[in-house]
Amino acid sequence: MTRQGLIQQIREKKSFLCVGLDTDMDKIPAHLLKLEDPIFEFNKAIIDATKDLCVAYKPNVAFYEALGPKGWESLKKTIDYIPSHCLTIADAKRGDIGNTSTYYAKTFFEYLNCDAVTVAPYMGEDSVTPFQEFKNKWVILLALTSNKGALDFQFTTDSNGEELYKKVLKKSSKWGSEENLMYVVGATRAEGIAEVRKIVPNHFFLVPGVGAQGGSLEDVAKYGWNNDCGLLVNASRSIIYASNGTDFAEKGREEAKKLQQEMELILKEKHF
Amino acid sequence: MTRQGLIQQIREKKSFLCVGLDTDMDKIPAHLLKLEDPIFEFNKAIIDATKDLCVAYKPNVAFYEALGPKGWESLKKTIDYIPSHCLTIADAKRGDIGNTSTYYAKTFFEYLNCDAVTVAPYMGEDSVTPFQEFKNKWVILLALTSNKGALDFQFTTDSNGEELYKKVLKKSSKWGSEENLMYVVGATRAEGIAEVRKIVPNHFFLVPGVGAQGGSLEDVAKYGWNNDCGLLVNASRSIIYASNGTDFAEKGREEAKKLQQEMELILKEKHF
Repeated sequence: MTRQGLIQQIREKKSFLCVGLDTDMDKIPAHLLKLEDPIFEFNKAIIDATKDLCVAYKPNVAFYEALGPKGWESLKKTIDYIPSHCLTIADAKRGDIGNTSTYYAKTFFEYLNCDAVTVAPYMGEDSVTPFQEFKNKWVILLALTSNKGALDFQFTTDSNGEELYKKVLKKSSKWGSEENLMYVVGATRAEGIAEVRKIVPNHFFLVPGVGAQGGSLEDVAKYGWNNDCGLLVNASRSIIYASNGTDFAEKGREEAKKLQQEMELILKEKHF
Repeated sequence: MTRQGLIQQIREKKSFLCVGLDTDMDKIPAHLLKLEDPIFEFNKAIIDATKDLCVAYKPNVAFYEALGPKGWESLKKTIDYIPSHCLTIADAKRGDIGNTSTYYAKTFFEYLNCDAVTVAPYMGEDSVTPFQEFKNKWVILLALTSNKGALDFQFTTDSNGEELYKKVLKKSSKWGSEENLMYVVGATRAEGIAEVRKIVPNHFFLVPGVGAQGGSLEDVAKYGWNNDCGLLVNASRSIIYASNGTDFAEKGREEAKKLQQEMELILKEKHF
């Protein structure tokens, strides 16, 4: 999906919601466990219930990998099932030396045919650019993450007083363009979002941390908005585990709808 | 495998060689391609030919992932086939927020039953420690990598003039111990190895970059040695692709043997 295509979806659906598919065998409703592929059946129901309310889905690859080859099959079926009007993001946080990153890119962009993959920046340019050689595909680079450990290294200031996450933004923004590069910016660091926006005014941000992790949608919009919206706000657990009964998809839709309605208000306020 | 167990293997085999299984469908000998699982058959032959010469194997997970569920089956069969006297390292460079890292840990330590996994440090403590909750398992954290992109962020100096990789070493060495934590330190940065050794005198290093990437074994030993050897030197392509004929395993053994003999000399010089 192109940048323009994504913006068009945000306008049509009045939403910049990304639904995180952190699908966990230990948390899905018991009645699904007797089916042949419970993970896929769960995702299918969630997708059916939310696809008009969100513009992206983000399967968290760790949860599928832990199930072995069968998990990869569930992941592939899920990605194939996501309608083409939604961006598919593999949350995989890969990154390795050049020829290895090319293999990771093949996995996510060719084998799974995702639109985007999350990548870690520690190994630098040649660990990122192999992903950017795939047309109409996206790298979503970790910049400022939502977890506690983000404080360990991301805020390290260099001799000019510049934090590491800012250096990551400045350098990496030259490796790609706003057409093939987004950034992960955690909702739990609202003021940080404003700092990130100053450095990369045009890029989209994938923003985790709203919902279960405690970030505020209002703050994210306040600090992260740009002229093209520029935001994909992810919620995972608050939507997909809204109920663990047979009504899980319906209850998940209700949670997604609440977020979409908040987003619709924000988009209206911004005259988008 | 425990640290003492690893040291014992180094003494017995007179080797601190790790063989990297970057097994690539496009590079393995043509005669294997007609078999049901060419990747596993290739690895099996390489393992049979080198298991007395090395103390560790390191499958590069990217190459297996790119083949989908079948690749994960080949990876599992490979790890199951590696004899228990060799350390098994999944080179996966994972790292995510806490509950997700736990799933990655389950994948590599439970499902695949590897001894060790490589992890990226950008997201900090809570992305690393979930791996360290598994008994007799190892995290091998990226510190100073062998690629060009290492220069982008790893050498960023903070306001005290300290490089990022040194900060990673100092902080992370408190998260685990020399019994469950090693570091990736690239052979292409020989003087860097000496700096790393000053900060973490007792930890083992996994050293890629000897062979195809141009690093020198002599320099690695000169700068990285500690009283327990403290080194696992990896070679991948120079061993596994020594020939692309039916003699690939035999030629791979010859290359592994050359490295093992150099290592034997070093161990002798060090009276180990």
